[in-house]
Amino acid sequence: MALEDAFTNFTERDWERKSPDGTVRLAVIGVGGFARNRALPGIADSTYCETTTLVTSSPDRTRTVADSFDIPNVIDYDGFLAGDHAAAYDAAYVATPNALHGTYATVAADRGKHVICEKPLDTSLETAQEIVDACADAGVTLMTAYRLQVEPTVRRTRELVRHGGIGDVAQIHGTFSNPLLDHADPDTWRLDPDLAGGGALVDLGVYPLNTTRFLLDCDPDGVYATTHSSGEPFDPVDEHVSFQLEFPTGATAACTASFNAHANSRLELIGTDGMVTIASPFGGVVPQEIVVESGDLRMEYTGPPVDEVREEFDYFGYCVLTDTDPEPDGPDGLADLRVVEAAYESAKTGRRVGLE
Amino acid sequence: MALEDAFTNFTERDWERKSPDGTVRLAVIGVGGFARNRALPGIADSTYCETTTLVTSSPDRTRTVADSFDIPNVIDYDGFLAGDHAAAYDAAYVATPNALHGTYATVAADRGKHVICEKPLDTSLETAQEIVDACADAGVTLMTAYRLQVEPTVRRTRELVRHGGIGDVAQIHGTFSNPLLDHADPDTWRLDPDLAGGGALVDLGVYPLNTTRFLLDCDPDGVYATTHSSGEPFDPVDEHVSFQLEFPTGATAACTASFNAHANSRLELIGTDGMVTIASPFGGVVPQEIVVESGDLRMEYTGPPVDEVREEFDYFGYCVLTDTDPEPDGPDGLADLRVVEAAYESAKTGRRVGLE
Repeated sequence: MALEDAFTNFTERDWERKSPDGTVRLAVIGVGGFARNRALPGIADSTYCETTTLVTSSPDRTRTVADSFDIPNVIDYDGFLAGDHAAAYDAAYVATPNALHGTYATVAADRGKHVICEKPLDTSLETAQEIVDACADAGVTLMTAYRLQVEPTVRRTRELVRHGGIGDVAQIHGTFSNPLLDHADPDTWRLDPDLAGGGALVDLGVYPLNTTRFLLDCDPDGVYATTHSSGEPFDPVDEHVSFQLEFPTGATAACTASFNAHANSRLELIGTDGMVTIASPFGGVVPQEIVVESGDLRMEYTGPPVDEVREEFDYFGYCVLTDTDPEPDGPDGLADLRVVEAAYESAKTGRRVGLE
Repeated sequence: MALEDAFTNFTERDWERKSPDGTVRLAVIGVGGFARNRALPGIADSTYCETTTLVTSSPDRTRTVADSFDIPNVIDYDGFLAGDHAAAYDAAYVATPNALHGTYATVAADRGKHVICEKPLDTSLETAQEIVDACADAGVTLMTAYRLQVEPTVRRTRELVRHGGIGDVAQIHGTFSNPLLDHADPDTWRLDPDLAGGGALVDLGVYPLNTTRFLLDCDPDGVYATTHSSGEPFDPVDEHVSFQLEFPTGATAACTASFNAHANSRLELIGTDGMVTIASPFGGVVPQEIVVESGDLRMEYTGPPVDEVREEFDYFGYCVLTDTDPEPDGPDGLADLRVVEAAYESAKTGRRVGLE
């Protein structure tokens, strides 16, 4: 592939090979900031999904949100568990605190509903496996909500890497920091280890982790990690994490994530014959700026704005409607949790932890 | 310090507090590519140094080089050891393969000559300590040739960090790759473990290592490293290295270096209140491009070109003439070797190796 061809069809939905009819009707479970500001608008904008039901702890307060998106049903968590309005949705988008993913995803699957579950799948590999099993038993689609996998910068970069545009990938640097307390109270569930399952690694570090695995099409066979917390309110979890992924190819990925550092994200892949840098890939609004160097060529590309959340829900809807297994499926979510658990073990023991 | 003041006196030699008379006359020991292309022109351009003697294995071939820089004496290594033209130089610049640093630095010191020695000081902590001891015993100046420490981008960044311009430094990413075989034969001494003492870590990785220690004004208390080689001709040493430095402050530095990846260097410091990125800091010709983010401000600064090699020799000359201890002194060089040895131990054992 010539370098200049790499981004010719930048926003192409290479996954969209048919034009299925209809939409997948969603129950959105957990109406936090991300759901209100990104997921509901993205779904409203999508071709293959629509929201028919909101599940929230405060239905009265959420009614205004529902009205602004023309969503007919608002129920509470008990109502969801009891099956209220179950005929009104085909799938559940699970956006609760991580420790509750299992409960709602499993109930939805048992009810024959497809599931798109926020990352990480749950707080432990064990409970995440239960989600995967429940979806498999029910024969429903399970997607882990890794929106990066449908983000054009990332998909085009994967194609470039696959076609040898930068040679063999040798070294990766990935970083994602997002000052949590700028937009959350100190009592946020993200700092509660029971509800979140971890700190910066679980909430932010999974982005470079999953994206690196996706780009290399390969799982690490070892991980080393260090965590650090400076005190309250971060103390019960990792405020900062630095982890190194080691791949069977010999490639390494040096990744960092932080709840308490200047907002920043970046991904750089250095290969034997070139390199790719993606600016701000992980923050949810990607500027679509890619720099590729290959041999003596250097190319800067800025793609048109794309709502990766709309892309994500369209991809999920498409997979359900066409009975396609999503790329970020259950096993993909489990693979990340396996690395996360190994990373925390490494941080405790000071040793590289091997992965099968 | 206001952000816009950080680079007001960008090229200021803050270390130059007097105007000493005279110059330090140098014997340049080892006339390889770097010496010919960078060191000799830098010294010729400097205020406080001049070259009077070249020491080389092929004096006949080197005569042309000597003539082009008006250097009167060209001798071979045996001649140097025997004291030929010793009255013509005040100091020795040791630029031989690493394993020979000890021999020539020690002979020079014993002769009462000051020493500026290429990094790393030697191939092992033990022989490097002998250089430090010899210089201390002789009462001569010893500088480890870390030119980055007089590079304006790095000095100004250190001031910014010291003044809290980016808050507490939480996470650093440093990378330096330089495809060795683009400019060296496969039988280069840099791939000979006996002569070089290691591979990419020793030759390239010491740049982000030393620069990070300099910027944080702090030594790591632990290191983890992975090395990888794909085969001949890299095999006897590390072709690629990825290492993580852990500082007592909780800060981490994720560093990579490679002999066989696309040429690239970069240093990024992410703090609690901002970040600094230096473009291409390690390759010898620094574009003087710094991006600083602090709170909501973002500033891109491009400084005037500066020959960091001339700066380095002027700094050395100044230190000798004013009897000032250089910042990159013997103990600074030893500290890096301590980390290098610990990193290789870590790569062997798969464990974090603690440092005093």
